[in-house]
Amino acid sequence: MATVLDHTIVPVKDREKSVEFYTRIFGFDNLGEVGPFLAVKVNGTLNFDFRESDDFRSMHYAFAMDHQEFEDAFARIQESGISYGDSPREQENMKGPGDVRRRQGDGQSGLLQGP
Amino acid sequence: MATVLDHTIVPVKDREKSVEFYTRIFGFDNLGEVGPFLAVKVNGTLNFDFRESDDFRSMHYAFAMDHQEFEDAFARIQESGISYGDSPREQENMKGPGDVRRRQGDGQSGLLQGP
Repeated sequence: MATVLDHTIVPVKDREKSVEFYTRIFGFDNLGEVGPFLAVKVNGTLNFDFRESDDFRSMHYAFAMDHQEFEDAFARIQESGISYGDSPREQENMKGPGDVRRRQGDGQSGLLQGP
Repeated sequence: MATVLDHTIVPVKDREKSVEFYTRIFGFDNLGEVGPFLAVKVNGTLNFDFRESDDFRSMHYAFAMDHQEFEDAFARIQESGISYGDSPREQENMKGPGDVRRRQGDGQSGLLQGP
């Protein structure tokens, strides 16, 4: 499996209007509430998670990849001294990988701040 | 072909550091300069185009889809009275679709502001 963008948090002014827009114009599936977000399914690998925000300075991109690729990337993160964490609310606790359940199956996750 | 996210403009503090980070940690291909951006290839369908910016309030998501799906979506856009345009610098001139050359082949493009 190539590494794919699994989901990204899209900062918007109005979640309901955004869902209505993307489902009606592009025909994306309405997934309703997914965790704290309203989400649409762009295709089999990618969701857009809408969050209402006036502060768009922090973007969130979640990649899904094979287990070995994850292990290799996580090792490079640790070797680089980059801060990471095991949950969306703990991105710098240096714990992990965390467990995650996604539509592709159970796996592991690591969260980090890009440069 | 399912609709895919073809590219998105990722606002970053430092383009070079972002390219170095994503190529080294995740192994994405460095595409160098792509138009006004530095870009990496996440996989066969998705590029990240890095733009240095302190103002992240406008995000850019470009979807690629089959010709018929594009025609249908463009018709819905026109029926909805949503402003659109035929180039990245002309997103409200109500012209279009514009011509576009992409790795998937020549096609048409429409640009619009989401809700």
